[in-house]
Amino acid sequence: MSKPTLAVVGATGAVGTVMLSILSERADVWGEIRLVASKRSAGKRLVVRGEEVEVQLLEPSVFDGVDVAMFDVPDEVSAQWAPIAVSRGAVAVDNSGAFRMDPDVPLVVPEVNGDVARARPKGIIANPNCTTLTMMDALGALHRKWQLTELVVASYQAASGAGQPGVDRLYDELGVVGGRRDLGVRAGDVRAALAEKLGDQPSPFPAPLALNVVPWAGSLKDGGWSSEELKVRNESRKILGIPSLRVSATCVRVPVVTTHSLAVHATFASPVTVDEAHEALAAAPNVVVVDDPANGEFPTPADTVGADPTFIGRIRQALDFPNTLDLFITGDNLRKGAALNTAQIAELVAAELT
Amino acid sequence: MSKPTLAVVGATGAVGTVMLSILSERADVWGEIRLVASKRSAGKRLVVRGEEVEVQLLEPSVFDGVDVAMFDVPDEVSAQWAPIAVSRGAVAVDNSGAFRMDPDVPLVVPEVNGDVARARPKGIIANPNCTTLTMMDALGALHRKWQLTELVVASYQAASGAGQPGVDRLYDELGVVGGRRDLGVRAGDVRAALAEKLGDQPSPFPAPLALNVVPWAGSLKDGGWSSEELKVRNESRKILGIPSLRVSATCVRVPVVTTHSLAVHATFASPVTVDEAHEALAAAPNVVVVDDPANGEFPTPADTVGADPTFIGRIRQALDFPNTLDLFITGDNLRKGAALNTAQIAELVAAELT
Repeated sequence: MSKPTLAVVGATGAVGTVMLSILSERADVWGEIRLVASKRSAGKRLVVRGEEVEVQLLEPSVFDGVDVAMFDVPDEVSAQWAPIAVSRGAVAVDNSGAFRMDPDVPLVVPEVNGDVARARPKGIIANPNCTTLTMMDALGALHRKWQLTELVVASYQAASGAGQPGVDRLYDELGVVGGRRDLGVRAGDVRAALAEKLGDQPSPFPAPLALNVVPWAGSLKDGGWSSEELKVRNESRKILGIPSLRVSATCVRVPVVTTHSLAVHATFASPVTVDEAHEALAAAPNVVVVDDPANGEFPTPADTVGADPTFIGRIRQALDFPNTLDLFITGDNLRKGAALNTAQIAELVAAELT
Repeated sequence: MSKPTLAVVGATGAVGTVMLSILSERADVWGEIRLVASKRSAGKRLVVRGEEVEVQLLEPSVFDGVDVAMFDVPDEVSAQWAPIAVSRGAVAVDNSGAFRMDPDVPLVVPEVNGDVARARPKGIIANPNCTTLTMMDALGALHRKWQLTELVVASYQAASGAGQPGVDRLYDELGVVGGRRDLGVRAGDVRAALAEKLGDQPSPFPAPLALNVVPWAGSLKDGGWSSEELKVRNESRKILGIPSLRVSATCVRVPVVTTHSLAVHATFASPVTVDEAHEALAAAPNVVVVDDPANGEFPTPADTVGADPTFIGRIRQALDFPNTLDLFITGDNLRKGAALNTAQIAELVAAELT
């Protein structure tokens, strides 16, 4: 049988750009790779697998003959177009939030629950939110051995989680504050410096990000929760298959370009030691343990960005909580947190077809 | 009776500098204010209360006639010199970690446990660690009503927590990365850029801080815990008077100049609603509630630095944990986290004397 055809919808965005590089690096399971984008980007020529490919306009006929269609686009675009791709015969692998909590759509992390990808009554498979994905490989490995019951999570999320506008804004802000040694001393001086130099340029963040941290990501939900925090809760439950998992998350943006970090307080049904956790994590696929603080070894975003695995360190047995580990986990939010996991799901489908 | 004499030991450091500004702003309870530092800084002239004062050398006789001696110096300097100040007749108010867990030394946050400052068998009163102090006023107010039982904390700590060398290093690093739009894309590129421009200049941080977060503060203790994380646990228990308080903390440095932030998951003995918490916190001294995310209102370091109160927002009732609130708290680590609280303790002692 010939190799399956792949469509990449949203090929010109922050995640799409990383996707093209990932598709060029991984074992090549694809025949044709069709790049698709909105009117603004159609006609551009992008390089994938070393060849220039012209970006095609997003329209129903672009999915004819496509086996797998990946969507790296906003929720509303996926909500409209993934079903169209399916109606034209493709399996849709969607990286937006449009279908993740739909009971008829599997939410898949291949190393954790790849088996559920085959049951897809709507022809759609969802890729989890980047913050959730950062910790799933590591927590999935621990859960298999000790049964996770509780998670308290605080995030340190990168600007690129808000797409290319987030990256551009952080660089713009750093250009203003980078040479200024007088900032960060009085309330409002970072805001004033940015207002003077960047004026009314819109920001995807609700406060300055340079020299600051911003405890908000997403939209406001009931009870003062952000949509991002509820995604961490609801998607972790669905991926790990623990509907009763107790989760509290506080999501915070930090002045890092790419790579999310998470401080995780994880409680299990049975006792687990640090040595046992190290052993289970060392055996987990695509997880790297970096945990020797005496020698300055712990995961950081600057050491993680661009890498495929997620990194885990600072593994400590909680002193006052039974069966509980405190952890620090990093993962490139554009790779495992988005494009890489989507590519892995698409490869699961390709393996069924060939 | 004449006004008491104050000595400020470590007047030229990061905390000492803020102390001089705080002493110039607050109601003036002091007669003479004597500034004291090591040989390197003795003889300098600094301004306090609008007047130039010459810095005197740290030697036993400098404490003669002193009523209260504040110490903003490293642990080993306090350990040696606070008892000398006491032997010369002063009450020592120490901002180092040397005496905080000594059962004969009260550890004081005036709004929370000011009453314990009078019992000081060694003549020494300790000022808490800056990370712990950031949350004590808010948690103390909540504890009085609902009895705190558990704390899970993740910190976002500013560079100035490592003193002036920390601030200088962050500014130096921002000078290198500020204009570079190509960094933060590949692992190691921030490290390489800093190595090229800053060479072997020593850093107080064990990894790059610009465009990064560093999950380490302090020294390594048993079980992989950092000294900073254990301070949060042990000092919270002592200040709040809850020896059995269950605490897990993960302490992380972020590229912010001044103001620590904390994501806090706090469990109480009795049920508490968000409205009740708002009410209790609004009535708490030196706590400001900033909690209207629909209008972009939440605490951030850039909006906090230079202010005396601590700020609290993102107050949410945990969805899956009974009697639990999730919170975000910010506080200027050089003011309430250090100099301001020390000044407040010194004023408690001054009030006894006058």
